Amino acid sequence: MSDAKEGDAHLHRLVLFSDAVFAIAITLLAIEIHPPEHWTSVGELFFLMGPKLAAYAISFAVIGIYWVSHRRLFERIARANGMLDALNFITLGLVALLPLGTELLWEQEAGRAFPVYVTLVALIGVSLGLLWGYAAFIGKLVKPIRPLLATYVLVRVALLPGLMCGLSFFSLVHPWGWGLMAAIVGSLALAGRRIERRAAPQDAA
Amino acid sequence: MSDAKEGDAHLHRLVLFSDAVFAIAITLLAIEIHPPEHWTSVGELFFLMGPKLAAYAISFAVIGIYWVSHRRLFERIARANGMLDALNFITLGLVALLPLGTELLWEQEAGRAFPVYVTLVALIGVSLGLLWGYAAFIGKLVKPIRPLLATYVLVRVALLPGLMCGLSFFSLVHPWGWGLMAAIVGSLALAGRRIERRAAPQDAA
Amino acid sequence: MSDAKEGDAHLHRLVLFSDAVFAIAITLLAIEIHPPEHWTSVGELFFLMGPKLAAYAISFAVIGIYWVSHRRLFERIARANGMLDALNFITLGLVALLPLGTELLWEQEAGRAFPVYVTLVALIGVSLGLLWGYAAFIGKLVKPIRPLLATYVLVRVALLPGLMCGLSFFSLVHPWGWGLMAAIVGSLALAGRRIERRAAPQDAA
Amino acid sequence: MSDAKEGDAHLHRLVLFSDAVFAIAITLLAIEIHPPEHWTSVGELFFLMGPKLAAYAISFAVIGIYWVSHRRLFERIARANGMLDALNFITLGLVALLPLGTELLWEQEAGRAFPVYVTLVALIGVSLGLLWGYAAFIGKLVKPIRPLLATYVLVRVALLPGLMCGLSFFSLVHPWGWGLMAAIVGSLALAGRRIERRAAPQDAA
Repeated sequence: MSDAKEGDAHLHRLVLFSDAVFAIAITLLAIEIHPPEHWTSVGELFFLMGPKLAAYAISFAVIGIYWVSHRRLFERIARANGMLDALNFITLGLVALLPLGTELLWEQEAGRAFPVYVTLVALIGVSLGLLWGYAAFIGKLVKPIRPLLATYVLVRVALLPGLMCGLSFFSLVHPWGWGLMAAIVGSLALAGRRIERRAAPQDAA
Repeated sequence: MSDAKEGDAHLHRLVLFSDAVFAIAITLLAIEIHPPEHWTSVGELFFLMGPKLAAYAISFAVIGIYWVSHRRLFERIARANGMLDALNFITLGLVALLPLGTELLWEQEAGRAFPVYVTLVALIGVSLGLLWGYAAFIGKLVKPIRPLLATYVLVRVALLPGLMCGLSFFSLVHPWGWGLMAAIVGSLALAGRRIERRAAPQDAA
Repeated sequence: MSDAKEGDAHLHRLVLFSDAVFAIAITLLAIEIHPPEHWTSVGELFFLMGPKLAAYAISFAVIGIYWVSHRRLFERIARANGMLDALNFITLGLVALLPLGTELLWEQEAGRAFPVYVTLVALIGVSLGLLWGYAAFIGKLVKPIRPLLATYVLVRVALLPGLMCGLSFFSLVHPWGWGLMAAIVGSLALAGRRIERRAAPQDAA
Repeated sequence: MSDAKEGDAHLHRLVLFSDAVFAIAITLLAIEIHPPEHWTSVGELFFLMGPKLAAYAISFAVIGIYWVSHRRLFERIARANGMLDALNFITLGLVALLPLGTELLWEQEAGRAFPVYVTLVALIGVSLGLLWGYAAFIGKLVKPIRPLLATYVLVRVALLPGLMCGLSFFSLVHPWGWGLMAAIVGSLALAGRRIERRAAPQDAA
């Protein structure tokens, strides 16, 4: 009982700490954006700041999506240990690099920065996937869950955001990418719903 | 029961996360203010820093007012879902732009920055209004409330702060604007009190 | 009952929000300190960075002391209202200016920055005093407390930190100031202990 | 009873405040890293940013390790007092200097910055050791614990991270340092396990 409560306190502090890092990283995204030195009309202002605001919006969405993923994963986790701390720190360390990645995105006119940015976004997903894989299959830190559902969560968390981010940039050039993205998201959602429905009786028990 | 508790945990993390973003944005308002390189008297110091400190005070009040609005809205909300997350992120994404908006305010001597700033402030209100409108009328996420009161809250949250901010700047040039503002705030408060009094019996039940 | 719980939630969010602002302000104190461009020995490094590190240590202590004051005041407060929100925002708005005040302190060689900095520190105390005075005597937001003790708390919170900060700088030039400071702190502590002892029976009841 | 609850509230706010400072410091580590102005390939980008990213990773690990130490210490602490506040502020004040220390690390090509950085890291450990020593042996603020275990915790917290950090840099030049480090960590872990096993019956009682 005392152990369970201590584990709860550990998990609680870990979640609060992660929330704080997510919140700080998301708010710092705008800190390096400064107004242009000269502008004569609102139109010109937005023209000059457009790339920065677009990069800001993209990274805000990325951190938002990963915060939601992180919240959902940790709803399924029952307790923490030192290894979970360490894996969570890797995720946070990559999230805290997103303000830098955002700057990279708007400073380069050429498309060279895109793959670097997409790689960073994908790595956050992979690190979250590692965290979940460890918690579900090795550390046994999660609430009761069917292996198939746990595997589905792993795949979705680890791959989906990076894939979506990469495909978004790809689709700016090749519009048929949007169709591919819709197909992937749709079939993953369908698969997920089927797996969760089958899993429900046992998980609820 | 378990669902209710999970919904509570979700709402709880959402509120804490929002508070953190508000707190960081409000504290970052001053981060780009630096002392002038040369000053010989306290009077000169304040003369040189006056516009920046004024812009800081205005934005501090704006974030403060929206934090209070956010807190009041979420006191009426009983649970969260993914859509509420997304709408809340839009609000936070606009709040996190206020340090940039503040910089815009003090770097431009001309009044060109005012409408941009007021638009940003008004957009935060609109996004909060959308969030509340969704929570109250579509997502059914709120504690029992009469539709009339919910509508009043929507109007007040969505329009009042932007209107007040715009009228404040307007009144610096046209002093009769202050009277208009007092009339709007006063009649809204009166209407609100009447609606809340009528609503009280049912809501308390 | 429901009102009391809502008041608790309000107070709870207010305290968490304030803690976040204090934490951010205290951590941002160091953000504008950068290493010198050239240094050849550790001694030279510390000689070059000395004034900045000293200013950092002073402001860290100031925020720390005010955080402790804030925590103690709010231990005596039972519920929050809109006015308390507003007064608390004034305190936070001044605290968030301390990174700027710290920069002022190290950029000026002459003593001209000292009075500005001390004024800022003293204003935080005054604003906390206003908050407490309102909560204890006007808004009746505090747990049961004897008026004499409430007045003592008001005086100590509003005046002591500013006085100590001012006297510290004064004493760097006039060493007998340290004696004066010790006398003030000592007699205030003595008075406080006597008042609290007399107040104890009633407050405990 | 009321005292115990107030002490809990104090400890709770202290822990939350510390978590916030740790989270802000760890997220600010990357804030001074900016992309290079010119780069033609991803390889060149990483070559140019390598030292900064390496310094970022090291400091992220250092803050992470100290956050875990802090969390573990405070799991053993039962209540707070003013002295614990003060000692904790010293720890936080040193942690908040790590972004500056990290900058020092990457701006100096020569090894002169290493000892300064290691000293800062070691000082954080010493300050945490002081905090624990005070809480366990003087202030009697901890949950029941055997003196031998308390002493072991003191030694581990105060010395291990600084030693490991110093040895890591040392081992980059003298590879046999890694062996020394493994030996120290291993024997400390062994000693710790033996002490905790012996201590368990009494502590559990």
